Amino acid sequence: MPLPEWFHELAREVSNRGRWGDDDELGTMNLITPEATLRGVECAKTGRSFSLALPLHHDGPQTGRIPNRINPIHTMIGINTPFMGDPQKTCLSDDIVVMGTQSATHWDGLAHASYEGRLYNGFPATTVIAEAGATKCGIEKVKSIVTRGVLLDVALVKGVRRLDAGYAITAEDLDTAAAKAGLSVESGDIVLVRTGQQEHLFAGDKDAYRLPAPGLSSKTVKWFRSRDVAAVATDTFSFEVWPGEDEEVLLPVHLLHLVEMGMMQGQHWFLDDLAEDCAKDGVYEFLLHASPEPIAGGTGSPVNPVATK
Amino acid sequence: MPLPEWFHELAREVSNRGRWGDDDELGTMNLITPEATLRGVECAKTGRSFSLALPLHHDGPQTGRIPNRINPIHTMIGINTPFMGDPQKTCLSDDIVVMGTQSATHWDGLAHASYEGRLYNGFPATTVIAEAGATKCGIEKVKSIVTRGVLLDVALVKGVRRLDAGYAITAEDLDTAAAKAGLSVESGDIVLVRTGQQEHLFAGDKDAYRLPAPGLSSKTVKWFRSRDVAAVATDTFSFEVWPGEDEEVLLPVHLLHLVEMGMMQGQHWFLDDLAEDCAKDGVYEFLLHASPEPIAGGTGSPVNPVATK
Amino acid sequence: MPLPEWFHELAREVSNRGRWGDDDELGTMNLITPEATLRGVECAKTGRSFSLALPLHHDGPQTGRIPNRINPIHTMIGINTPFMGDPQKTCLSDDIVVMGTQSATHWDGLAHASYEGRLYNGFPATTVIAEAGATKCGIEKVKSIVTRGVLLDVALVKGVRRLDAGYAITAEDLDTAAAKAGLSVESGDIVLVRTGQQEHLFAGDKDAYRLPAPGLSSKTVKWFRSRDVAAVATDTFSFEVWPGEDEEVLLPVHLLHLVEMGMMQGQHWFLDDLAEDCAKDGVYEFLLHASPEPIAGGTGSPVNPVATK
Amino acid sequence: MPLPEWFHELAREVSNRGRWGDDDELGTMNLITPEATLRGVECAKTGRSFSLALPLHHDGPQTGRIPNRINPIHTMIGINTPFMGDPQKTCLSDDIVVMGTQSATHWDGLAHASYEGRLYNGFPATTVIAEAGATKCGIEKVKSIVTRGVLLDVALVKGVRRLDAGYAITAEDLDTAAAKAGLSVESGDIVLVRTGQQEHLFAGDKDAYRLPAPGLSSKTVKWFRSRDVAAVATDTFSFEVWPGEDEEVLLPVHLLHLVEMGMMQGQHWFLDDLAEDCAKDGVYEFLLHASPEPIAGGTGSPVNPVATK
Repeated sequence: MPLPEWFHELAREVSNRGRWGDDDELGTMNLITPEATLRGVECAKTGRSFSLALPLHHDGPQTGRIPNRINPIHTMIGINTPFMGDPQKTCLSDDIVVMGTQSATHWDGLAHASYEGRLYNGFPATTVIAEAGATKCGIEKVKSIVTRGVLLDVALVKGVRRLDAGYAITAEDLDTAAAKAGLSVESGDIVLVRTGQQEHLFAGDKDAYRLPAPGLSSKTVKWFRSRDVAAVATDTFSFEVWPGEDEEVLLPVHLLHLVEMGMMQGQHWFLDDLAEDCAKDGVYEFLLHASPEPIAGGTGSPVNPVATK
Repeated sequence: MPLPEWFHELAREVSNRGRWGDDDELGTMNLITPEATLRGVECAKTGRSFSLALPLHHDGPQTGRIPNRINPIHTMIGINTPFMGDPQKTCLSDDIVVMGTQSATHWDGLAHASYEGRLYNGFPATTVIAEAGATKCGIEKVKSIVTRGVLLDVALVKGVRRLDAGYAITAEDLDTAAAKAGLSVESGDIVLVRTGQQEHLFAGDKDAYRLPAPGLSSKTVKWFRSRDVAAVATDTFSFEVWPGEDEEVLLPVHLLHLVEMGMMQGQHWFLDDLAEDCAKDGVYEFLLHASPEPIAGGTGSPVNPVATK
Repeated sequence: MPLPEWFHELAREVSNRGRWGDDDELGTMNLITPEATLRGVECAKTGRSFSLALPLHHDGPQTGRIPNRINPIHTMIGINTPFMGDPQKTCLSDDIVVMGTQSATHWDGLAHASYEGRLYNGFPATTVIAEAGATKCGIEKVKSIVTRGVLLDVALVKGVRRLDAGYAITAEDLDTAAAKAGLSVESGDIVLVRTGQQEHLFAGDKDAYRLPAPGLSSKTVKWFRSRDVAAVATDTFSFEVWPGEDEEVLLPVHLLHLVEMGMMQGQHWFLDDLAEDCAKDGVYEFLLHASPEPIAGGTGSPVNPVATK
Repeated sequence: MPLPEWFHELAREVSNRGRWGDDDELGTMNLITPEATLRGVECAKTGRSFSLALPLHHDGPQTGRIPNRINPIHTMIGINTPFMGDPQKTCLSDDIVVMGTQSATHWDGLAHASYEGRLYNGFPATTVIAEAGATKCGIEKVKSIVTRGVLLDVALVKGVRRLDAGYAITAEDLDTAAAKAGLSVESGDIVLVRTGQQEHLFAGDKDAYRLPAPGLSSKTVKWFRSRDVAAVATDTFSFEVWPGEDEEVLLPVHLLHLVEMGMMQGQHWFLDDLAEDCAKDGVYEFLLHASPEPIAGGTGSPVNPVATK
């Protein structure tokens, strides 16, 4: 069965292919201009910062369901090793880490998804190779991410602690949350969409956290596109609603965002503390730093996003 | 042979032990108050950002001399894997990375060094264990780093492209560079000291990049302490001068900074592009975002520091 | 609560400390003399071989319950990489693997366990260090293992497909199985004890496979010691019965075997096909090759044990 | 430039394609019949065993020249971890290892090489994928290897400690070494060819050990094929002579052995101690156990080959 017509139509509507040139590998990160950065800087009024990252820990969100995507494994290659042979003098401890780039709080880079043999901007999917990973659109191409961040707390505006599993967020939900936030999303912004789904994770139920889940949907793609959002992140595992809306195309939002729009997606972002603070002071915009780790050829990378209000 | 008296004396002078309470694990990161953050925010005037990270790549700075501290190894666990069994539809690529936390651009966390059986703030060095890494002063305790950054381009003010191997930077060098920068270093700042040493690295000579090297010294410790600097980073492998100044204590600056002052150190920071820009516009201060990856129990972490001018 | 007296008494009875000298790191591997090897060689009469290893695969026996002990992760560092730049000519594929040494079919080496601060033969437990693993009794000290193997199919002789969870195998069970096998266990033999527990694993229930489990017990320790067995392996996760017999000392058999006797233990050995063959031809002895991988400082290693009849 | 005609002709002469059926993934391992195994067993006359493996250690043969093929990295995930919370009672140490499958003493499996888009027996090279490695001819398909081993000490018969770098071993060299060994190589044997090249390795010169090197050549391929040898191993890094004999096809022996003959290759085998013993007693045949680790989808695996005389 081919991909459904609604999908192809939506793809045509939102595509950014060629928009920044045939060689562009940055997609909507191009929208974070110095002006966008400064607009973010202006939001930093109190100097208080919030880390939006889950810990990198072996007891992380991964359950083993995705073959080989391991939680971070952190081991010591030295513990108080006497640097000079004398344990009373200089001793150093050192460590290594093994992890999936997408194991915990991370960015999906543009090379993470493909369909019909293409990545973003028409690059062949075959540009992803074992020897070097993503030779086009690798995450290391994104040198820095500093812009205005906007929290759309959809769970809050719908009056729940956690959206229902399988709930497909709508454009109206985003409008309502933006109204609650008292702001308009602008070009170059990064939008953080809160579902409350991590309630499961903190209760110890990783399977429930993973799937089924609420999330973004085919109905929100154009909302982001029309506002020229630079990226979107959620506090979920799957980013988009699961089960999906149409079994003829699974993870359509991934394809539309990553491949057609060239827009990165953040997953497993920890939004609860920030959301609590925004609810308290009514300020839903902030300076957001979310620069990826420059993993050469990475399809994504861990990130410690920081919101400064 | 015991540690020399000059070392013990300097340790007493600069110690921050107990300054933020007996349970404090953050050290000078405590100095990045909301006020310090805002002082950094004010420096972001043009919206232009500079990543200060070397790529995370198997051809990284490590030469194998440090047992087990491997360059980043990035491998694909899936390449365009058909998510639905149909290669024309949704395909996903995914990857893992194995690396030393200190392999490339990174922070030395407070648990990285110890002597006389102690970490920062009197915590026993035995709090670093195989099962969980650093149970005190782990890098994950540092949730975010957003503050003013200041570049002291010592190579520039000394009129060289690269300081000589083995050159011990002095307090006067830092003063001269600060004067060149037209600013005073303040409490909560992060100071970036440029030596030009990466000239070797970019010429392909990793051994020369590593050692011997120019770097900070016993003569600069008090300079940072008296200004209550939050952290210091260099563009070198060893951070401090090598060979050291006194063979009775190797890496004394590591001990004085990490253990006595509780001040983190950045290593392998890429400063050349930033330095070129600062030389051009004469502005040596900037908003600096350098939040570590929250590796639970990490003695350090990779970081992608971003300077926004 | 101290270790119980029965445990200390049994430890005294079975201890091999000093038996092969104060510097010995091989323990009962010393019993595999050339004569023992030849006795094993004599058993190879038909030339048919059986691998006793579970596959090394990400879908292995580990469930994540043991922090950081990951199933084998196998990734490609190159897939048909053109060696000469021409994809029609020489292409090479290459891979790496990340795994716990004890993740699947493996040997527990002598450094795996300690109590009262000691390893086998009085070596301090502190000889196990982060920098180099087991500096005494590392698995690499065991260069080769070639001897007679004997299968004691306890499940078979008890008329069940799988021993009950929590069933503590007795000396009488071993006698019965040896009688069924029509042989006497001799010095330098390696004894394989079959419980049938992998029925759970092949049914997909890794938790049931793990614990609770049937296994060897305090009642079988002297049986092996008095026969001077070189090593023992089972088809279980825990090797010894779980829950244990005395909550004042958990895993007592590990301590008595590894620390007191210096006798290695095999875990997760796949015995079903071999057992079926032995039941068919009534021959329960064979040449056994089970040399560990020479992981320097390893507390254990994966092994592909091969029985040749 | 196409592959040279001599290569294609030799390929046709030695090909085993279809010999064991169109679905065969074992190649010359099929030649290790129970009879071959028994012929090996007969050689075990004294019961003395020799491990032919280099240690698995971070200071291994790899120099970083091959991207991502790291030496074994062994780290502790626990050191004397109190199993019951009481450090006087049961404590366990555990570890993980990260390594290239081909980092040290190993087998090249049949999926390691391809040309013209084919692996052994006509399987498409595209059967090697990121998600699962080698889905055809994976090393795990070779359950066990127990057969007669024969040492051909070419260095010895040529009167040198080490063959010259770049020396292409000839069929005559093999004949001379077989005559010295006083035996004929038979179907199902595994032949170990000693060059003495590890002299460099033990002198600390890993680069010299690697390349250039003596090794097998186009002139020895038919020698092995006509004797229906099951596998060949050398004490070198590259297995075949380097530089190669014809720059139009690099690593031709790899292609002829692995792809055309379906014959595995061993590399980095440690042969010096065995060779010394064979020279002493004049016996150059032995029982050889060299079963690979069953890495699912592996292109190769580490191995601890053991020769028993």
